[in-house]
Amino acid sequence: MQLYWDKGFERTSMADLVKATGMAKPGLYANLGDKEQIFQKALEHYDETVVCPMLEKLLSPSTPLKEALRQSLSGMMHSLRGSGLPMGCFVINSTFECTGEKDRISEYLAQMNAKRRDAYLERLDHAKADGELSKGADTLALANFFTGQSAAIGAMARSGLPLSELDAMVEVALSALPEDEKVRRTV
Amino acid sequence: MQLYWDKGFERTSMADLVKATGMAKPGLYANLGDKEQIFQKALEHYDETVVCPMLEKLLSPSTPLKEALRQSLSGMMHSLRGSGLPMGCFVINSTFECTGEKDRISEYLAQMNAKRRDAYLERLDHAKADGELSKGADTLALANFFTGQSAAIGAMARSGLPLSELDAMVEVALSALPEDEKVRRTV
Repeated sequence: MQLYWDKGFERTSMADLVKATGMAKPGLYANLGDKEQIFQKALEHYDETVVCPMLEKLLSPSTPLKEALRQSLSGMMHSLRGSGLPMGCFVINSTFECTGEKDRISEYLAQMNAKRRDAYLERLDHAKADGELSKGADTLALANFFTGQSAAIGAMARSGLPLSELDAMVEVALSALPEDEKVRRTV
Repeated sequence: MQLYWDKGFERTSMADLVKATGMAKPGLYANLGDKEQIFQKALEHYDETVVCPMLEKLLSPSTPLKEALRQSLSGMMHSLRGSGLPMGCFVINSTFECTGEKDRISEYLAQMNAKRRDAYLERLDHAKADGELSKGADTLALANFFTGQSAAIGAMARSGLPLSELDAMVEVALSALPEDEKVRRTV
């Protein structure tokens, strides 16, 4: 997973995969499939180990909405810097790399993005029902917006923004929340 | 440019470039340089024909701030759909594709993103001076945020969001503006 996350699909060769797995090429094909199948397995692994725990945390009702959203965005961001991990969300990076072609991987990526969006939507709808969010809030628009923020932060991190400026971006994004106690126009 | 914009750097071969330009390979090398140099030329052409006019419009003081920001984001978005043009901003797509390596192209992309950020910053600072924006507004954070929104919208467009939902995302992003006449916390 690390390899694909780091280099992307196109730049990773079967030779790289042989080296990373320590498997010979025939064994690799027999056990894991071709380059595309291994890529999909890497995405599935990322989903289980990174995305799902993040979404579980997001959906936990014990954290106030704004804090839960902040954690979901900052968690992603802090994994970008100084952790030795590759840059940005694997799913978002792949979404940009796997361009145009309507293949299995693109469809899988769209599903993963939809799952994340649906988790944001669920959390936002709960918050609306609980009065944490204005009754007039367009939760679908907000869910799409927050799902997209990992791409926004990822792009700016890649452009060399320091962590403090990325943090400030997250705060701007959070200020778009039409909270119930604020006087504001309906979004 | 169209070719690189559409397929990205890695997926475009010299054979594709030969076909698109109608030049033979030796002529291509002699006139335009290697694959990386042609890619940089494509980015420069995109900068001149797409980015610069967009930034000029953004900086025009005759349009109110919110409308100018809306136009800059929607303009990008509408070029994504139904226009026959490739998906998303060429610079943002390339920022995600050209991963990790600190090469000439990555540096050039970072410069292009910085230029766009600086234009947003200039417009926001003017708006603050003119009282269109709250005196307490963190214009640097807002400029980074709006620069990042093309990545957010691009990612969600690629995930299959319809235009109406992309439009609604833009409205959420605009609601993060701390306008002077609104009662709100200082961002």
